[in-house]
Amino acid sequence: MAPTHAQQLVISTDTLVADVHFKSSDPPETIGHKALAVNLSDLAAMGATPKWALLNLTLPSIKRSWVNGFVKGFASLLNEHQVQLVGGDTTSGPLSISVTVLGECQQAVTRSQAQVDDLVVVTGTLGSAAFALQHPRSNKTCNQQLRTPQPRLDISAKIKHLATAMIDVSDGLLADLGHICQASGVAAVIELTQIPVNEAIKKDADWPRFVLAGGDDYQLCFTIPMAAEEQLPEDCHIIGQIIAGEGVMVLNNHQPIDVDYPGYQHFDHD
Amino acid sequence: MAPTHAQQLVISTDTLVADVHFKSSDPPETIGHKALAVNLSDLAAMGATPKWALLNLTLPSIKRSWVNGFVKGFASLLNEHQVQLVGGDTTSGPLSISVTVLGECQQAVTRSQAQVDDLVVVTGTLGSAAFALQHPRSNKTCNQQLRTPQPRLDISAKIKHLATAMIDVSDGLLADLGHICQASGVAAVIELTQIPVNEAIKKDADWPRFVLAGGDDYQLCFTIPMAAEEQLPEDCHIIGQIIAGEGVMVLNNHQPIDVDYPGYQHFDHD
Repeated sequence: MAPTHAQQLVISTDTLVADVHFKSSDPPETIGHKALAVNLSDLAAMGATPKWALLNLTLPSIKRSWVNGFVKGFASLLNEHQVQLVGGDTTSGPLSISVTVLGECQQAVTRSQAQVDDLVVVTGTLGSAAFALQHPRSNKTCNQQLRTPQPRLDISAKIKHLATAMIDVSDGLLADLGHICQASGVAAVIELTQIPVNEAIKKDADWPRFVLAGGDDYQLCFTIPMAAEEQLPEDCHIIGQIIAGEGVMVLNNHQPIDVDYPGYQHFDHD
Repeated sequence: MAPTHAQQLVISTDTLVADVHFKSSDPPETIGHKALAVNLSDLAAMGATPKWALLNLTLPSIKRSWVNGFVKGFASLLNEHQVQLVGGDTTSGPLSISVTVLGECQQAVTRSQAQVDDLVVVTGTLGSAAFALQHPRSNKTCNQQLRTPQPRLDISAKIKHLATAMIDVSDGLLADLGHICQASGVAAVIELTQIPVNEAIKKDADWPRFVLAGGDDYQLCFTIPMAAEEQLPEDCHIIGQIIAGEGVMVLNNHQPIDVDYPGYQHFDHD
């Protein structure tokens, strides 16, 4: 690999474990797609352009049709974003996938520069993936968002010069916006009714939880100075504002509501 | 990460799965050491200087003492080679470890430029790890070579300008030298009695198999022009020569011997 001079190199890596991050029975194309998509989403959140990828595949056995399907989903997304596969390995063991993606940027967007009065913005719709997990056959669009999320490199490329802080919504909006607030030493107030959702999820009375705490959406959440509002491209939605303090406060029609959703926890600590 | 201008960036990644690549019951310090060592060894084989690492750790549960031990072994080797940990993730699932290491070099040494008449050289001793796997309590040095292999970055730094081709001995000498021969379109003839071994392994009548086909040694095997012989540093041993043809021929006291050891196979293909 020959990095471009005067660009920063950024890197993201994620492991997806069968029956933790995806179902073993999921179509292999979607597993291949998602394993790459979640890493590209991390690069989008840094305002970087993905260039190279590595794939470590651990398989209990080689089933040719499964591997072909997996590679098809993985390669299709590689090609779409002109990312080159430069290495990896294949080993035997319980099904899991580690993907590493390298990208370049002039100056990485971090989580730590959100300023008081900045606007809080999200892309796409939130809660669809969590809804689809609960209601697997209910809505095709939600199901696609869960199985084959599209990394928002399109939006990232347009707003990276505006964003003061950025993250992708992988653990849930409250948890991820909470990470920005903590890293920046600020608080945020957001309005539930301003958060874009697929109306289909309102079939479930629990939909606010999907929107606020559902992971796996892989949309972007970022902050911009108020003066930059006019420059926001399509599919970007202002949902709140940065304030002094700590934590994330949620309003529903201007009334504070109690939210006590934990972000996704991988472990019970001993 | 800020890559150095005018250097090539190289990358290596490997997944180690419990009870495939190491025993779950191994001391966690040695697992942490080995997970990093095998990747540093890949960089040594390219003639690169390691700079950054990523660690993806998949654990069935968090046992603090295990994690502390693992991190101790991993961090100690990071520090020894001044490698910076720049990312990774932790997920729940069957125990496995993916490590990715990035390094820099002026010009990567590949497997494909071995020339007819070049000398074949190996470092250290071979077969010790395979011997220790068969005889776990028999010899401390062999056991250390299996559990805590030392990536030969020391030798690599001294001979990278001489080497026409290089690989690390992870799958076994015949398999790995075979990779060089295949990539370079040449053959090799090596002399068993010239291969450096720990004398202790000769307790086992099967020792030539450990030497020729035992994996996990993480020594270097490389080729140099005959004229460069005088420049070889200590602990480098000439074991043969590159010839025209294909494959690796083994002599024992100048007599060809039959070798039919497969390299390590991860899978039975369907």
